[in-house]
Amino acid sequence: MSEGRTGTVAVGSNVPRADTGRIAADIDALRELTLPDRPYTRRAFTPIYAQGRQWLSAAMADAGLHPETDYGGNLVGRSRETDRGSVAIGSHIDTVPDGGAYDGVAGVVAGLEVVRLIKQSGIDLPFALEVIDFLSEEPSDFGVSCIGSRAMAGTLSEADLARTDGAGTPLRDALRAVGGRPEALGAPLRERGSLRAYLELHIEQGPVLERAGAPVAIVSGIVGIRRYEVRLTGNPSHAGTTPMDTRHDALPAAAELVLAVERLARGRAGEDGFVGTVGRLAVTPNAANVVPGEVTATVELRAPSDESLDEVQRELEARIAEVSSERGLGFRFAEASRTPPVELDHELRTMLGQAADAAGVQALQMMSGGGHDAGHVAALAPAAMLFVPCREGLSHAPAESADPGDIAVGAQLMLQVVLGLAATR
Amino acid sequence: MSEGRTGTVAVGSNVPRADTGRIAADIDALRELTLPDRPYTRRAFTPIYAQGRQWLSAAMADAGLHPETDYGGNLVGRSRETDRGSVAIGSHIDTVPDGGAYDGVAGVVAGLEVVRLIKQSGIDLPFALEVIDFLSEEPSDFGVSCIGSRAMAGTLSEADLARTDGAGTPLRDALRAVGGRPEALGAPLRERGSLRAYLELHIEQGPVLERAGAPVAIVSGIVGIRRYEVRLTGNPSHAGTTPMDTRHDALPAAAELVLAVERLARGRAGEDGFVGTVGRLAVTPNAANVVPGEVTATVELRAPSDESLDEVQRELEARIAEVSSERGLGFRFAEASRTPPVELDHELRTMLGQAADAAGVQALQMMSGGGHDAGHVAALAPAAMLFVPCREGLSHAPAESADPGDIAVGAQLMLQVVLGLAATR
Repeated sequence: MSEGRTGTVAVGSNVPRADTGRIAADIDALRELTLPDRPYTRRAFTPIYAQGRQWLSAAMADAGLHPETDYGGNLVGRSRETDRGSVAIGSHIDTVPDGGAYDGVAGVVAGLEVVRLIKQSGIDLPFALEVIDFLSEEPSDFGVSCIGSRAMAGTLSEADLARTDGAGTPLRDALRAVGGRPEALGAPLRERGSLRAYLELHIEQGPVLERAGAPVAIVSGIVGIRRYEVRLTGNPSHAGTTPMDTRHDALPAAAELVLAVERLARGRAGEDGFVGTVGRLAVTPNAANVVPGEVTATVELRAPSDESLDEVQRELEARIAEVSSERGLGFRFAEASRTPPVELDHELRTMLGQAADAAGVQALQMMSGGGHDAGHVAALAPAAMLFVPCREGLSHAPAESADPGDIAVGAQLMLQVVLGLAATR
Repeated sequence: MSEGRTGTVAVGSNVPRADTGRIAADIDALRELTLPDRPYTRRAFTPIYAQGRQWLSAAMADAGLHPETDYGGNLVGRSRETDRGSVAIGSHIDTVPDGGAYDGVAGVVAGLEVVRLIKQSGIDLPFALEVIDFLSEEPSDFGVSCIGSRAMAGTLSEADLARTDGAGTPLRDALRAVGGRPEALGAPLRERGSLRAYLELHIEQGPVLERAGAPVAIVSGIVGIRRYEVRLTGNPSHAGTTPMDTRHDALPAAAELVLAVERLARGRAGEDGFVGTVGRLAVTPNAANVVPGEVTATVELRAPSDESLDEVQRELEARIAEVSSERGLGFRFAEASRTPPVELDHELRTMLGQAADAAGVQALQMMSGGGHDAGHVAALAPAAMLFVPCREGLSHAPAESADPGDIAVGAQLMLQVVLGLAATR
């Protein structure tokens, strides 16, 4: 955040209320713009995605914004050109295959609603207001997620641009085809300080808010994610003729690993967002009558801090070494990927909290266990996020569902923050 | 066994000694008759298998036997026609793909050596002596093992005969092509009592004999085998946004199952041949960032008695129910196959033990953890088996190796039993 601090959020009596009906109508409109035979699929870079953006451009224009595509392939609707910087609200309209109608869309639609409310109120903001639809937040066929927000932050690499999809097209070309300018990437697309704040509303994609009965959460940060490939190597042998005490069976060792990951993660229950998962496991040779000779497993740890990840990584590696030694196995423990945790902007979170208090809205505080565009934008500008509940924690599935009323609550809080930011200059 | 008992094995001073060189030469000859580009492969029903049998027919004839193929497709070399029954020594010359040169072959070659020794000694046996090469002991492309010994015992079913290989050929036709007579099967191929004894020498396919430094083991029985398909069903969910305490993760439950199988089997270490294995395990959806929603595992138990198998099955099922209940999962525990244990003939085992004692040979007693033709023949006739060590317990691989000297020791003991059987009439 910039130097200005504020203790109070301006809540003028003439501030209009977010309109649940308009929000629901926008969600329905975008739900229609998915593949007819695969509800709900609108993959980035596809024709149906272009149709979705066409609708969104028109909706931006209706709300008084000037839509254009930036070098990173993001669809940006801006209220006006100004040298006093801008405040942006965004998310994404691309989906996973057979995804839901709310993931990403909720945030874009909430942004549109905030813009409409500002226009309705007649308030002249001292900065531009933007709605951003980031390109390809979901992992695309190019094997990289958050393409647009990485591009905006200047962290989309040459290697990323060289990645190809199933048809062999490099991301560089696909980006150009949707209006981006790959040769201009590699540095932040905004001058430092010009993006004064970024706000993003998103469905939680988990069960916490629904269970708590709260309409909204202020996201304190985005977890760091580390993935490890663990290979345990014993001896494959005849399951009938190899006595129990002469086996070097890789699978019980892997079982101990799976339970260790669970135990270590449960032991960190006090750390919001700490989870550990073995999601992938492969047994070799995987035959009923052969003692498994090798098991590979992918371990994923997510935590609010690198310190936690370091500690648990050490504990886990020690446990694997111990189990392997006890069982006479070889092992390999290799880090496959690492994404550092992101702390979201403290001042924006405070403003969101004050807005919730003032409105009598119960707002939880929680970490985000999933990655979001806000995590990349945070490298460039003060960023904050709101979560709204989704039914049964379901996401990335057609059954994904959220209450437009909750999205309206979130939009109202973001509106208050925009007004608060305006009041502090 | 028939009524005659014997306390002593006739060990005449004129009994010739088994010839290690001849045994090694026979093994080498059969090793040559495998696919040139895939050592060592001689699958039943293939042209190279026919070449192996051609060699074996000639070797039988050289040893004074009359080779012919019985209705079950077994190559049987018989010393003479007689109504006084026969004593048979056999095993098989088919291999698994990329198998070894000793599995099965050792037993057939040992049988040939016994016949040569009898011929050499000039002893006129009061029964016919046979060497049998059973058809397709290894699981064939038809998905059934021990085809020839099942056929001889009358337990090869119509359903087995209707099984097809990859090319769609029914086993019935394949059996006819190698000289069998499928329409004559379904009842035992020998009159009750006519096969007076069956002896089989086989490599151990495990590490016990090598570790003990013993040249031979008398096999007390063949374990029963039960296989179970266990399915654990939870909820697949986002590995980042689903807190540890709200998960229904199928994989840690499967890990507890794997460890329970190991613990229960280890707890039965006192029961020779008791082993428990989870050899196959499949995770769904098997993605790094998704909490596993379902795991299926194949559990195999092998034990010397059905009572043990019943008990451990009950313990295991109770444990799975307990784990599933604790973790809020569904489960299905289904028996996939069941082969009952076989106890080998007590009198023949006693005679083998006495022969070993008389020769000063250390003979262990052990269960067979793998299935063998002797297990099927045992339904028809008194049957016994000897194991000889194999290097590092390796089998079903080109590195499989056994000492022809140990096979000679086994042949010598079988010779003594043949002479003993002759002396008791």
